[in-house]
Amino acid sequence: MRTIITIGREFGSGGREFGRRLAEELGIEYYDKEIITEIAKHTDLSEEYVQSIVESKPHQLYPITIGQSFTYLDNYYVGQMQSVYLAQEEILKKLVEKSDCVIVGRCADYILKEYHPYRIFIYADMESRINRCIERSTSKEAFTRKEIEKHIRKIDKGRAKYYEYYTGKVWQHKENYDLCINTTNTNIKEIVPLISKLFKKNI
Amino acid sequence: MRTIITIGREFGSGGREFGRRLAEELGIEYYDKEIITEIAKHTDLSEEYVQSIVESKPHQLYPITIGQSFTYLDNYYVGQMQSVYLAQEEILKKLVEKSDCVIVGRCADYILKEYHPYRIFIYADMESRINRCIERSTSKEAFTRKEIEKHIRKIDKGRAKYYEYYTGKVWQHKENYDLCINTTNTNIKEIVPLISKLFKKNI
Repeated sequence: MRTIITIGREFGSGGREFGRRLAEELGIEYYDKEIITEIAKHTDLSEEYVQSIVESKPHQLYPITIGQSFTYLDNYYVGQMQSVYLAQEEILKKLVEKSDCVIVGRCADYILKEYHPYRIFIYADMESRINRCIERSTSKEAFTRKEIEKHIRKIDKGRAKYYEYYTGKVWQHKENYDLCINTTNTNIKEIVPLISKLFKKNI
Repeated sequence: MRTIITIGREFGSGGREFGRRLAEELGIEYYDKEIITEIAKHTDLSEEYVQSIVESKPHQLYPITIGQSFTYLDNYYVGQMQSVYLAQEEILKKLVEKSDCVIVGRCADYILKEYHPYRIFIYADMESRINRCIERSTSKEAFTRKEIEKHIRKIDKGRAKYYEYYTGKVWQHKENYDLCINTTNTNIKEIVPLISKLFKKNI
Protein backbone atom coordinates (compact mmCIF):
# COMPACT_ATOMS: atom_id res chain seq x y z
CA MET A 1 0.00 0.00 0.00
CA ARG A 2 1.20 3.47 -0.87
CA THR A 3 2.55 5.71 1.91
CA ILE A 4 1.09 9.19 1.61
CA ILE A 5 1.71 11.48 4.55
CA THR A 6 0.24 14.97 4.74
CA ILE A 7 1.55 17.54 7.18
CA GLY A 8 -0.50 20.45 8.48
CA ARG A 9 1.54 22.80 10.65
CA GLU A 10 1.29 25.92 12.73
CA PHE A 11 3.74 28.60 11.66
CA GLY A 12 6.97 28.30 13.65
CA SER A 13 6.22 24.78 14.89
CA GLY A 14 8.93 23.19 12.74
CA GLY A 15 6.37 21.38 10.58
CA ARG A 16 8.19 21.98 7.32
CA GLU A 17 11.50 20.72 8.72
CA PHE A 18 9.62 17.77 10.21
CA GLY A 19 8.11 16.90 6.82
CA ARG A 20 11.40 17.23 4.97
CA ARG A 21 13.31 15.11 7.45
CA LEU A 22 10.53 12.51 7.59
CA ALA A 23 10.62 12.12 3.80
CA GLU A 24 14.43 11.82 3.90
CA GLU A 25 14.27 9.25 6.68
CA LEU A 26 11.71 7.20 4.78
CA GLY A 27 13.44 7.69 1.45
CA ILE A 28 10.29 9.00 -0.22
CA GLU A 29 9.41 12.17 -2.14
CA TYR A 30 8.85 15.49 -0.38
CA TYR A 31 6.59 18.20 -1.78
CA ASP A 32 6.15 21.67 -0.48
CA LYS A 33 7.07 24.76 -2.48
CA GLU A 34 7.41 22.62 -5.61
CA ILE A 35 3.62 22.51 -5.72
CA ILE A 36 3.43 26.31 -5.91
CA THR A 37 5.83 26.26 -8.86
CA GLU A 38 3.69 23.67 -10.61
CA ILE A 39 0.48 25.60 -9.95
CA ALA A 40 2.09 28.75 -11.38
CA LYS A 41 2.99 26.83 -14.53
CA HIS A 42 -0.54 25.44 -14.87
CA THR A 43 -2.30 28.74 -14.32
CA ASP A 44 0.03 31.30 -15.90
CA LEU A 45 0.08 33.20 -12.61
CA SER A 46 3.33 34.20 -10.90
CA GLU A 47 4.66 32.02 -8.09
CA GLU A 48 4.41 34.97 -5.71
CA TYR A 49 0.77 35.49 -6.58
CA VAL A 50 -0.07 31.82 -6.22
CA GLN A 51 1.73 31.83 -2.86
CA SER A 52 -0.30 34.84 -1.72
CA ILE A 53 -3.51 33.04 -2.66
CA VAL A 54 -2.74 29.76 -0.93
CA GLU A 55 -1.51 31.42 2.25
CA SER A 56 -4.20 34.06 2.56
CA LYS A 57 -7.60 34.58 3.94
CA PRO A 58 -9.65 34.31 0.74
CA HIS A 59 -11.72 37.47 1.06
CA GLN A 60 -8.64 39.57 1.75
CA LEU A 61 -7.62 38.91 -1.82
CA TYR A 62 -10.48 40.98 -3.15
CA PRO A 63 -9.33 44.34 -4.45
CA ILE A 64 -10.82 47.59 -3.23
CA THR A 65 -13.50 48.31 -5.78
CA ILE A 66 -16.07 50.99 -6.28
CA GLY A 67 -19.46 51.06 -7.89
CA GLN A 68 -20.28 48.75 -10.70
CA SER A 69 -16.80 47.37 -11.22
CA PHE A 70 -17.15 45.34 -8.03
CA THR A 71 -19.00 42.36 -9.43
CA TYR A 72 -16.65 42.00 -12.35
CA LEU A 73 -13.44 42.15 -10.29
CA ASP A 74 -14.99 40.10 -7.55
CA ASN A 75 -15.74 37.32 -9.99
CA TYR A 76 -12.33 37.71 -11.55
CA TYR A 77 -10.45 37.09 -8.30
CA VAL A 78 -12.73 34.33 -7.15
CA GLY A 79 -12.11 32.76 -10.54
CA GLN A 80 -8.34 32.97 -10.06
CA MET A 81 -8.64 31.38 -6.63
CA GLN A 82 -10.72 28.59 -8.08
CA SER A 83 -8.12 28.04 -10.84
CA VAL A 84 -5.37 27.83 -8.26
CA TYR A 85 -7.36 25.39 -6.17
CA LEU A 86 -8.25 23.20 -9.14
CA ALA A 87 -4.64 23.19 -10.38
CA GLN A 88 -3.51 22.28 -6.87
CA GLU A 89 -6.00 19.42 -6.75
CA GLU A 90 -4.87 18.08 -10.11
CA ILE A 91 -1.17 18.35 -9.26
CA LEU A 92 -1.53 16.71 -5.86
CA LYS A 93 -3.42 13.76 -7.33
CA LYS A 94 -0.79 13.29 -10.04
CA LEU A 95 2.00 13.37 -7.46
CA VAL A 96 0.52 10.74 -5.17
CA GLU A 97 -0.25 8.47 -8.08
CA LYS A 98 3.41 8.62 -9.02
CA SER A 99 5.06 7.59 -5.75
CA ASP A 100 5.04 7.52 -1.94
CA CYS A 101 5.45 11.02 -0.55
CA VAL A 102 5.20 13.59 2.21
CA ILE A 103 3.20 16.72 1.35
CA VAL A 104 3.32 19.84 3.49
CA GLY A 105 0.28 22.13 3.64
CA ARG A 106 -1.96 22.79 0.61
CA CYS A 107 -5.12 21.25 2.19
CA ALA A 108 -3.59 17.97 0.97
CA ASP A 109 -5.22 16.00 3.80
CA TYR A 110 -8.62 17.03 2.45
CA ILE A 111 -7.90 17.06 -1.29
CA LEU A 112 -6.40 13.59 -1.16
CA LYS A 113 -8.95 12.05 1.20
CA GLU A 114 -9.89 9.31 -1.27
CA TYR A 115 -6.25 8.12 -1.12
CA HIS A 116 -6.48 7.81 2.68
CA PRO A 117 -3.33 9.75 3.51
CA TYR A 118 -1.88 9.60 7.00
CA ARG A 119 -2.68 13.08 8.27
CA ILE A 120 -0.21 14.64 10.71
CA PHE A 121 -0.57 18.05 12.35
CA ILE A 122 2.43 19.75 13.95
CA TYR A 123 1.89 22.37 16.64
CA ALA A 124 3.70 24.05 19.51
CA ASP A 125 3.14 26.72 22.13
CA MET A 126 3.69 30.35 21.19
CA GLU A 127 6.92 30.80 23.14
CA SER A 128 8.53 27.85 21.44
CA ARG A 129 7.33 29.02 18.01
CA ILE A 130 8.75 32.50 18.55
CA ASN A 131 12.08 30.97 19.62
CA ARG A 132 12.14 28.79 16.51
CA CYS A 133 11.48 31.81 14.30
CA ILE A 134 14.32 33.75 15.95
CA GLU A 135 16.77 30.84 15.57
CA ARG A 136 15.97 30.44 11.91
CA SER A 137 15.78 34.07 10.93
CA THR A 138 18.14 35.06 8.15
CA SER A 139 16.92 38.63 8.24
CA LYS A 140 19.36 41.30 9.33
CA GLU A 141 16.54 43.24 10.87
CA ALA A 142 15.87 42.38 14.50
CA PHE A 143 12.20 41.92 15.26
CA THR A 144 10.83 42.03 18.79
CA ARG A 145 9.11 38.92 20.19
CA LYS A 146 5.84 40.84 20.03
CA GLU A 147 6.31 41.56 16.32
CA ILE A 148 7.16 37.91 15.63
CA GLU A 149 4.09 36.75 17.55
CA LYS A 150 1.92 39.12 15.53
CA HIS A 151 3.41 37.72 12.31
CA ILE A 152 2.84 34.11 13.46
CA ARG A 153 -0.80 34.84 14.31
CA LYS A 154 -1.34 36.56 10.97
CA ILE A 155 0.08 33.65 8.95
CA ASP A 156 -1.90 31.09 10.95
CA LYS A 157 -5.08 33.11 10.54
CA GLY A 158 -4.55 33.03 6.77
CA ARG A 159 -3.92 29.29 6.77
CA ALA A 160 -6.98 28.66 8.93
CA LYS A 161 -9.24 30.76 6.68
CA TYR A 162 -7.94 29.13 3.52
CA TYR A 163 -8.41 25.65 4.98
CA GLU A 164 -11.89 26.46 6.23
CA TYR A 165 -12.90 28.05 2.94
CA TYR A 166 -12.07 24.93 0.92
CA THR A 167 -12.73 22.15 3.37
CA GLY A 168 -15.49 23.53 5.59
CA LYS A 169 -13.46 22.34 8.57
CA VAL A 170 -11.50 24.02 11.33
CA TRP A 171 -7.79 23.84 10.49
CA GLN A 172 -6.43 23.44 14.02
CA HIS A 173 -9.00 20.86 15.17
CA LYS A 174 -7.35 17.55 16.00
CA GLU A 175 -10.42 15.74 14.65
CA ASN A 176 -9.15 16.41 11.10
CA TYR A 177 -5.89 14.54 11.69
CA ASP A 178 -4.68 11.06 12.56
CA LEU A 179 -1.77 12.20 14.67
CA CYS A 180 -1.05 15.59 16.26
CA ILE A 181 2.49 16.18 17.46
CA ASN A 182 3.44 18.90 19.92
CA THR A 183 6.95 20.17 19.13
CA THR A 184 7.24 22.51 22.14
CA ASN A 185 10.80 22.23 23.50
CA THR A 186 11.41 19.44 21.01
CA ASN A 187 14.32 18.92 18.68
CA ILE A 188 12.74 18.02 15.32
CA LYS A 189 15.89 16.20 14.26
CA GLU A 190 15.55 13.87 17.24
CA ILE A 191 11.86 13.06 16.97
CA VAL A 192 11.72 12.34 13.23
CA PRO A 193 13.59 9.00 13.40
CA LEU A 194 11.14 7.94 16.13
CA ILE A 195 8.00 8.97 14.27
CA SER A 196 9.32 7.48 11.03
CA LYS A 197 9.18 4.07 12.70
CA LEU A 198 5.40 4.28 12.44
CA PHE A 199 5.75 4.07 8.67
CA LYS A 200 8.60 1.61 8.31
CA LYS A 201 7.67 -1.93 7.56
CA ASN A 202 9.52 -4.85 9.12
CA ILE A 203 10.74 -3.10 12.27
CA MET B 1 15.54 8.27 32.29
CA ARG B 2 12.22 7.04 33.63
CA THR B 3 9.39 6.35 31.14
CA ILE B 4 6.15 7.83 32.44
CA ILE B 5 3.29 7.88 29.98
CA THR B 6 -0.06 9.46 30.80
CA ILE B 7 -3.15 8.75 28.73
CA GLY B 8 -6.11 11.11 28.50
CA ARG B 9 -8.97 9.65 26.49
CA GLU B 10 -12.42 10.40 25.19
CA PHE B 11 -15.00 7.85 26.30
CA GLY B 12 -15.30 5.08 23.69
CA SER B 13 -12.07 5.98 21.93
CA GLY B 14 -10.29 2.84 23.13
CA GLY B 15 -7.91 4.84 25.31
CA ARG B 16 -7.99 2.42 28.21
CA GLU B 17 -7.26 -0.56 25.95
CA PHE B 18 -4.54 1.49 24.30
CA GLY B 19 -2.92 2.24 27.65
CA ARG B 20 -3.11 -1.34 28.86
CA ARG B 21 -1.65 -2.77 25.67
CA LEU B 22 1.05 -0.10 25.54
CA ALA B 23 2.17 -0.97 29.07
CA GLU B 24 2.19 -4.67 28.17
CA GLU B 25 4.16 -4.02 24.99
CA LEU B 26 6.72 -1.97 26.89
CA GLY B 27 6.79 -4.33 29.85
CA ILE B 28 6.04 -1.56 32.34
CA GLU B 29 3.38 -1.00 35.00
CA TYR B 30 -0.17 -0.01 34.13
CA TYR B 31 -2.39 1.98 36.47
CA ASP B 32 -6.02 2.79 36.02
CA LYS B 33 -8.71 1.55 38.42
CA GLU B 34 -6.03 0.51 40.89
CA ILE B 35 -5.63 4.18 41.71
CA ILE B 36 -9.28 4.44 42.73
CA THR B 37 -8.82 1.49 45.08
CA GLU B 38 -5.79 3.14 46.61
CA ILE B 39 -7.59 6.46 47.03
CA ALA B 40 -10.49 4.69 48.72
CA LYS B 41 -8.06 3.11 51.19
CA HIS B 42 -6.39 6.46 51.89
CA THR B 43 -9.63 8.38 52.42
CA ASP B 44 -11.97 5.84 54.00
CA LEU B 45 -14.49 6.52 51.23
CA SER B 46 -16.02 3.72 49.16
CA GLU B 47 -14.52 2.94 45.75
CA GLU B 48 -17.85 3.77 44.11
CA TYR B 49 -17.95 7.15 45.78
CA VAL B 50 -14.36 7.95 44.84
CA GLN B 51 -15.16 6.90 41.28
CA SER B 52 -18.18 9.19 41.20
CA ILE B 53 -16.03 12.08 42.37
CA VAL B 54 -13.20 11.60 39.89
CA GLU B 55 -15.53 11.11 36.94
CA SER B 56 -18.01 13.86 37.70
CA LYS B 57 -18.54 17.50 37.17
CA PRO B 58 -17.55 18.81 40.61
CA HIS B 59 -20.57 20.97 41.37
CA GLN B 60 -22.95 18.12 40.51
CA LEU B 61 -21.69 16.36 43.59
CA TYR B 62 -23.31 18.88 45.87
CA PRO B 63 -26.43 17.57 47.54
CA ILE B 64 -29.75 19.36 47.30
CA THR B 65 -29.76 21.47 50.41
CA ILE B 66 -32.16 23.88 51.98
CA GLY B 67 -31.73 26.85 54.19
CA GLN B 68 -28.85 27.07 56.59
CA SER B 69 -27.58 23.56 56.11
CA PHE B 70 -26.17 24.55 52.72
CA THR B 71 -22.87 26.01 53.85
CA TYR B 72 -22.06 23.12 56.09
CA LEU B 73 -22.80 20.41 53.50
CA ASP B 74 -21.22 22.46 50.77
CA ASN B 75 -17.98 22.63 52.69
CA TYR B 76 -18.27 18.98 53.59
CA TYR B 77 -18.42 17.79 49.97
CA VAL B 78 -15.78 20.20 48.75
CA GLY B 79 -13.64 18.86 51.56
CA GLN B 80 -14.17 15.29 50.39
CA MET B 81 -13.26 16.23 46.85
CA GLN B 82 -10.11 17.88 48.08
CA SER B 83 -9.22 14.76 50.09
CA VAL B 84 -9.70 12.61 47.02
CA TYR B 85 -7.58 14.91 44.90
CA LEU B 86 -4.80 15.11 47.48
CA ALA B 87 -4.80 11.33 47.93
CA GLN B 88 -4.68 10.92 44.18
CA GLU B 89 -1.72 13.29 43.95
CA GLU B 90 0.16 11.47 46.69
CA ILE B 91 -0.52 8.03 45.20
CA LEU B 92 0.45 9.03 41.66
CA LYS B 93 3.75 10.49 42.84
CA LYS B 94 4.55 7.36 44.82
CA LEU B 95 3.77 5.16 41.82
CA VAL B 96 6.01 7.01 39.37
CA GLU B 97 8.84 7.10 41.83
CA LYS B 98 8.64 3.32 42.06
CA SER B 99 8.90 2.37 38.38
CA ASP B 100 8.20 3.16 34.70
CA CYS B 101 4.47 3.16 34.03
CA VAL B 102 1.44 4.05 31.96
CA ILE B 103 -1.32 5.91 33.83
CA VAL B 104 -4.80 6.32 32.39
CA GLY B 105 -6.86 9.39 33.32
CA ARG B 106 -6.75 10.97 36.78
CA CYS B 107 -5.33 14.32 35.58
CA ALA B 108 -1.99 12.49 35.78
CA ASP B 109 -0.52 14.61 32.97
CA TYR B 110 -1.02 17.68 35.16
CA ILE B 111 -0.38 16.21 38.61
CA LEU B 112 2.91 14.67 37.47
CA LYS B 113 4.13 17.61 35.40
CA GLU B 114 7.35 17.95 37.39
CA TYR B 115 8.24 14.39 36.29
CA HIS B 116 7.82 15.38 32.62
CA PRO B 117 5.53 12.54 31.61
CA TYR B 118 4.90 11.85 27.94
CA ARG B 119 1.30 12.98 27.58
CA ILE B 120 -0.88 11.12 25.09
CA PHE B 121 -4.51 11.92 24.29
CA ILE B 122 -6.69 9.35 22.52
CA TYR B 123 -9.75 10.51 20.59
CA ALA B 124 -12.08 9.39 17.82
CA ASP B 125 -15.16 10.55 15.97
CA MET B 126 -18.58 9.93 17.53
CA GLU B 127 -19.62 7.17 15.11
CA SER B 128 -16.51 5.17 15.81
CA ARG B 129 -16.90 5.66 19.57
CA ILE B 130 -20.52 4.49 19.51
CA ASN B 131 -19.46 1.41 17.52
CA ARG B 132 -16.72 0.64 20.03
CA CYS B 133 -19.20 0.92 22.91
CA ILE B 134 -21.62 -1.46 21.17
CA GLU B 135 -18.87 -4.02 20.45
CA ARG B 136 -17.70 -4.01 24.04
CA SER B 137 -21.04 -3.93 25.75
CA THR B 138 -21.62 -6.78 28.17
CA SER B 139 -25.05 -5.49 29.08
CA LYS B 140 -28.04 -7.58 28.09
CA GLU B 141 -30.06 -4.44 27.56
CA ALA B 142 -29.87 -3.06 24.04
CA PHE B 143 -29.33 0.69 23.94
CA THR B 144 -30.02 2.77 20.84
CA ARG B 145 -27.14 4.65 19.18
CA LYS B 146 -28.75 7.87 20.40
CA GLU B 147 -28.77 6.66 24.00
CA ILE B 148 -25.13 5.58 23.73
CA GLU B 149 -24.15 8.95 22.26
CA LYS B 150 -25.93 10.72 25.13
CA HIS B 151 -24.03 8.56 27.62
CA ILE B 152 -20.68 9.25 25.88
CA ARG B 153 -21.31 12.99 25.94
CA LYS B 154 -22.30 12.88 29.61
CA ILE B 155 -19.16 10.99 30.65
CA ASP B 156 -16.90 13.28 28.60
CA LYS B 157 -18.57 16.36 30.03
CA GLY B 158 -17.81 15.05 33.52
CA ARG B 159 -14.18 14.33 32.63
CA ALA B 160 -13.78 17.75 31.03
CA LYS B 161 -15.24 19.53 34.06
CA TYR B 162 -13.11 17.58 36.49
CA TYR B 163 -9.96 18.24 34.48
CA GLU B 164 -10.74 21.93 34.13
CA TYR B 165 -11.61 22.26 37.81
CA TYR B 166 -8.23 20.96 38.93
CA THR B 167 -5.91 22.04 36.14
CA GLY B 168 -7.53 25.24 34.86
CA LYS B 169 -7.07 23.84 31.35
CA VAL B 170 -9.40 22.55 28.66
CA TRP B 171 -9.31 18.75 28.70
CA GLN B 172 -9.69 18.14 24.97
CA HIS B 173 -7.23 20.82 23.84
CA LYS B 174 -4.27 19.28 22.01
CA GLU B 175 -2.01 21.95 23.55
CA ASN B 176 -2.06 19.99 26.85
CA TYR B 177 -0.58 16.87 25.26
CA ASP B 178 2.58 15.77 23.47
CA LEU B 179 0.84 13.41 21.10
CA CYS B 180 -2.83 13.12 20.13
CA ILE B 181 -3.90 9.92 18.41
CA ASN B 182 -7.10 9.58 16.44
CA THR B 183 -8.44 6.03 16.76
CA THR B 184 -11.34 6.43 14.30
CA ASN B 185 -11.57 3.21 12.25
CA THR B 186 -8.41 2.01 13.94
CA ASN B 187 -7.65 -1.32 15.50
CA ILE B 188 -6.01 -0.51 18.83
CA LYS B 189 -4.22 -3.86 18.87
CA GLU B 190 -2.51 -2.98 15.59
CA ILE B 191 -1.40 0.56 16.41
CA VAL B 192 0.03 -0.10 19.87
CA PRO B 193 3.13 -1.98 18.64
CA LEU B 194 3.80 0.95 16.28
CA ILE B 195 3.37 3.66 18.89
CA SER B 196 5.38 1.66 21.43
CA LYS B 197 8.40 2.04 19.15
CA LEU B 198 8.50 5.70 20.18
CA PHE B 199 9.44 4.57 23.67
CA LYS B 200 11.72 1.65 22.97
CA LYS B 201 15.39 2.27 23.15
CA ASN B 202 17.81 0.72 20.66
CA ILE B 203 15.40 0.24 17.77
